[in-house]
Amino acid sequence: MSKPVQITDVVLRDGHQSLIATRLRTEDMLPICDKLDQVGFWSLEVWGGATFDACVRFLKEDPWERLRQLRAALPNTRLQMLLRGQNLLGYRHYADDVVEAFVAKSAENGIDVFRVFDAMNDVRNVETAIKAVKKSGKHAQGTLCYTTSPVHTVEAFVEQAKAMAAMGCDSIAIKDMAGLLTPYATGELIKALKAELDLPIFLHSHSTSGLAPLCQLKAIENGVDHIDTAISAFASGTSHPATESMVAALKGTEYDTGLDLELLNEIARHFWAVRKKYHQFESEFTREDVSVQINQVPGGMMSNLANQLKEQGALNRIDEVFAEIPKVRKDLGYPPLVTPTSQIVGTQAVMNVLAGARYKTITNEVKRYLMGHYGKAPAAVDDELRRKAVGSEDVIDVRPADLLPAELDKLRTDIGELAKSEEDVLTYAMFPDLGKTFLEQRAAGTLEPEVLLPIEQAGGQAAAVGG
Amino acid sequence: MSKPVQITDVVLRDGHQSLIATRLRTEDMLPICDKLDQVGFWSLEVWGGATFDACVRFLKEDPWERLRQLRAALPNTRLQMLLRGQNLLGYRHYADDVVEAFVAKSAENGIDVFRVFDAMNDVRNVETAIKAVKKSGKHAQGTLCYTTSPVHTVEAFVEQAKAMAAMGCDSIAIKDMAGLLTPYATGELIKALKAELDLPIFLHSHSTSGLAPLCQLKAIENGVDHIDTAISAFASGTSHPATESMVAALKGTEYDTGLDLELLNEIARHFWAVRKKYHQFESEFTREDVSVQINQVPGGMMSNLANQLKEQGALNRIDEVFAEIPKVRKDLGYPPLVTPTSQIVGTQAVMNVLAGARYKTITNEVKRYLMGHYGKAPAAVDDELRRKAVGSEDVIDVRPADLLPAELDKLRTDIGELAKSEEDVLTYAMFPDLGKTFLEQRAAGTLEPEVLLPIEQAGGQAAAVGG
Ligand SMILES: [Co+2]
Ligand SMILES: [Co+2]
Repeated sequence: MSKPVQITDVVLRDGHQSLIATRLRTEDMLPICDKLDQVGFWSLEVWGGATFDACVRFLKEDPWERLRQLRAALPNTRLQMLLRGQNLLGYRHYADDVVEAFVAKSAENGIDVFRVFDAMNDVRNVETAIKAVKKSGKHAQGTLCYTTSPVHTVEAFVEQAKAMAAMGCDSIAIKDMAGLLTPYATGELIKALKAELDLPIFLHSHSTSGLAPLCQLKAIENGVDHIDTAISAFASGTSHPATESMVAALKGTEYDTGLDLELLNEIARHFWAVRKKYHQFESEFTREDVSVQINQVPGGMMSNLANQLKEQGALNRIDEVFAEIPKVRKDLGYPPLVTPTSQIVGTQAVMNVLAGARYKTITNEVKRYLMGHYGKAPAAVDDELRRKAVGSEDVIDVRPADLLPAELDKLRTDIGELAKSEEDVLTYAMFPDLGKTFLEQRAAGTLEPEVLLPIEQAGGQAAAVGG
Repeated sequence: MSKPVQITDVVLRDGHQSLIATRLRTEDMLPICDKLDQVGFWSLEVWGGATFDACVRFLKEDPWERLRQLRAALPNTRLQMLLRGQNLLGYRHYADDVVEAFVAKSAENGIDVFRVFDAMNDVRNVETAIKAVKKSGKHAQGTLCYTTSPVHTVEAFVEQAKAMAAMGCDSIAIKDMAGLLTPYATGELIKALKAELDLPIFLHSHSTSGLAPLCQLKAIENGVDHIDTAISAFASGTSHPATESMVAALKGTEYDTGLDLELLNEIARHFWAVRKKYHQFESEFTREDVSVQINQVPGGMMSNLANQLKEQGALNRIDEVFAEIPKVRKDLGYPPLVTPTSQIVGTQAVMNVLAGARYKTITNEVKRYLMGHYGKAPAAVDDELRRKAVGSEDVIDVRPADLLPAELDKLRTDIGELAKSEEDVLTYAMFPDLGKTFLEQRAAGTLEPEVLLPIEQAGGQAAAVGG
């Protein structure tokens, strides 16, 4: 029985986000869109928080204009984005009217598929977005942020998926942002999801520890419908399995994707050439590293902590911090470690170590977390810690956004004449400072992308055959 | 049922051969040997034709001395070498007395496991070496050079493996030098070999097209006993799957290798640091590239041909050459493409294209090949071509070395006083010019390793978490 696996290529979003600090410019995307559009990908992931941020902050491109250009250049392929639930593309919970407006405008400008996640896996935080996607007539994908803990069982993930299915999701994605999945655990999870749900399942797993291709193979054998890959030039390490490899691996089997390897190879050559232009953003931290399989600390979090400790002249205490992280995470009820929870846990762990006593100082974010302002933790938080942090203030157990009054009108008024469109208002809503600066510079005609360092020409060597 | 997979780490031989032109020096191996020896690898591959060549040619190290130093530094781990059958570590067929002496001396200096292959898969060319290994009381491993063609069926490989088993081999290796294997084809091949043979099976597959980790997983599920991996710092691309990844992938399963990920991670950090020292040998041609899955031309062969054509100002004809290669290979009875057959086929294909008529000029190597001097081709060669190339000269159908008289005494006499040991005579036997120069420089006290370019310090960047 033939059961072709469907491919989402993430080179235009997660590929360059994972490997060159999200710096790929629209001018390096458009020339290859014609070929990308011919491949027959189920979708191309093209938009998300980091790409939006990098456009406004570094590239001085209007992210909405990028989306419209990609839409025009890719008429035959679904365009996909990653949305942080009630956080949208920003770093706080927005009122529902902003969520609804943002989704509507994203759909209108070209997004077909919305992958919606919440860092806590609190499904209440994705519900408004998912309903808005359905209202726009687009594909709503509910997301399981994968992590490991005593409460993150296969059954718990199945329950979460069912809750999102009940909200009207068209599909479910597993988002393994840290590369924690192992091949046989993946197989089990997919098997259970396929048995209990009647929805297509997508697998998004980072190759951080080199396991993602293996996880995908076991997922496929257990019935996964879709996998996320990146064209080889922006694949592997902290990015994703290479598109060509997975296509070649499945060729001639019942899972054959049917995609053309020669066409993919041409696309890879474009992106290999393009990648050289961004050499200043290459980093050793993006290479394959098994550490996350040893201590469950995501690679990006490890390098951020190392930088933080270095600045404080305390790099020698990094092992203590790594040992403290699982403890803080347990105290907070085992949140998945992804933006913003990775920062919340990491910063508190550093403080616990450097202060010489645990929770001598408690960050504002930990306090807000313990008050319920990020949503419901996966497991019970430590009661004593909560009392200490929160004191007599209120702990909420409603959806955080239930406490937020409508705010779109105020945002519209605040940005005023600088906004030439509803999209501009939303840019400002996502990034109040950066967004405003961007709109001001645009008005003044002073938008200037950051400068790229010149490419040095490096010569290749011939290799021997065999051995 | 627990069935732990055994690991051979190839970092000290194939890892650096595949990625930095075989330049790793003994001084960068010894400091990490203590840790390598603690891991519990089934074996470490440490020696072969290219490492021997690079020692004598570039590093001005005595390869025998390297072997003795590694032996002393790795008292608890089997040391493994790759041997080109009757070619030993050189580029011609040697008389049996040289083969016997070389194997005996390699065993005496520290080799425990001999992986013996023949580029044609002609088992007559491995028999003397295998018998010599058994005579030394060491582990003899017979090798299947993997390739694809109408005659390279699973059944044919099983037959070859049985023939080598009958010679007394202790195990069988599949050597996929080009990265041609696909996961499900690997599974089938392993299944058949395990069903028909009562010997341990080893899988050596290059990650050239990114499929090797997937091939290993399917091999393991079908009963393979041993896999070859390289510590991550010298893994992936034209090298092998990363040791840590495969160990992590199998952890907690019935195939658990039992190896310690933290210890492996420490070893990886050593080699990442060491690799910087050799940055001048890094090459774009070693990266993952799916081309071999499209046109069956090994990566190293493609880059060699590109260089060859460039020198002749004919790089624009490379696609014609790629199209000609399978035709020449068919005419020659489908030899696997590995040193020296890759050069024989490649050079003739270039001539066929540039001369404007096929076989207008025939190389001496093709002529010798067609006369039977490399052994028996896997399939019948083209009769007309053979007549044209060979003319009235004799075609042999015996084992090529049957025609070679004993030659060790002559070699010993030729090199004379320059050889201070039987090992020196064998160095000279392997590389008549280079070996002699090496011995002369040693006598004159003028051995000087090639100069390494200074390391530039490149700064890493912090990465974001998730997305
Ligand atoms: Co090899
Ligand atoms: Co991602």
